[in-house]
Amino acid sequence: MLNQQAAALDRLFKALADPSRRVMVERLARGPASVSELARPLAMSLPAVVQHLQVLEASGLVRSEKTGRVRTCRMEPAALQAAERWIAERRATWERRLDRLGDFLAEDVGRPKRGSKP
Amino acid sequence: MLNQQAAALDRLFKALADPSRRVMVERLARGPASVSELARPLAMSLPAVVQHLQVLEASGLVRSEKTGRVRTCRMEPAALQAAERWIAERRATWERRLDRLGDFLAEDVGRPKRGSKP
Repeated sequence: MLNQQAAALDRLFKALADPSRRVMVERLARGPASVSELARPLAMSLPAVVQHLQVLEASGLVRSEKTGRVRTCRMEPAALQAAERWIAERRATWERRLDRLGDFLAEDVGRPKRGSKP
Repeated sequence: MLNQQAAALDRLFKALADPSRRVMVERLARGPASVSELARPLAMSLPAVVQHLQVLEASGLVRSEKTGRVRTCRMEPAALQAAERWIAERRATWERRLDRLGDFLAEDVGRPKRGSKP
């Protein structure tokens, strides 16, 4: 189970580690698009776009559906949330640590120093 | 500038796309650690851990400092925030789109159908 989650996060972060794929996700956050619409702002061939699309689909970030000759792509927000959650959990751990450090320092300031006069 | 930001996000998401590197970030979110402490939960050689550490340092997620024979590693929360921000912006775009869709549907329900009696 943990391994499956780790593999899913591997695929997610790998999918996001490419600027063209991020442009595709940015476009799909604004609504569904065909493959040629996704290709428009990208300086690459349609087959290259389809390859990137496959990486995005494997990660769960995007799904697509063919109707007639047009393949329509949609964003899957749940996958993006999984990546966001992982990062937010690390930040929360980090912030709790800073809070504890703050508490410790505040206590330390309140406490009389060893050898100081009462 | 945009290209630099894109390259920074590439490195960040690539750094997070590996389960061992994520274990290292999870450990460092709890506080600084030496390389051998980072290696402890990972089934790999110290040189392999150092290689992962180099990827994390190149991404800006971690910095390290050698004092005597011990290299101490720390998390850099600002880098993690950049990744979090990119994801949150996509989610915000997606949610605004859902809101607009909701408004549109609500208006459409309120409007009398064409041909319906007044």
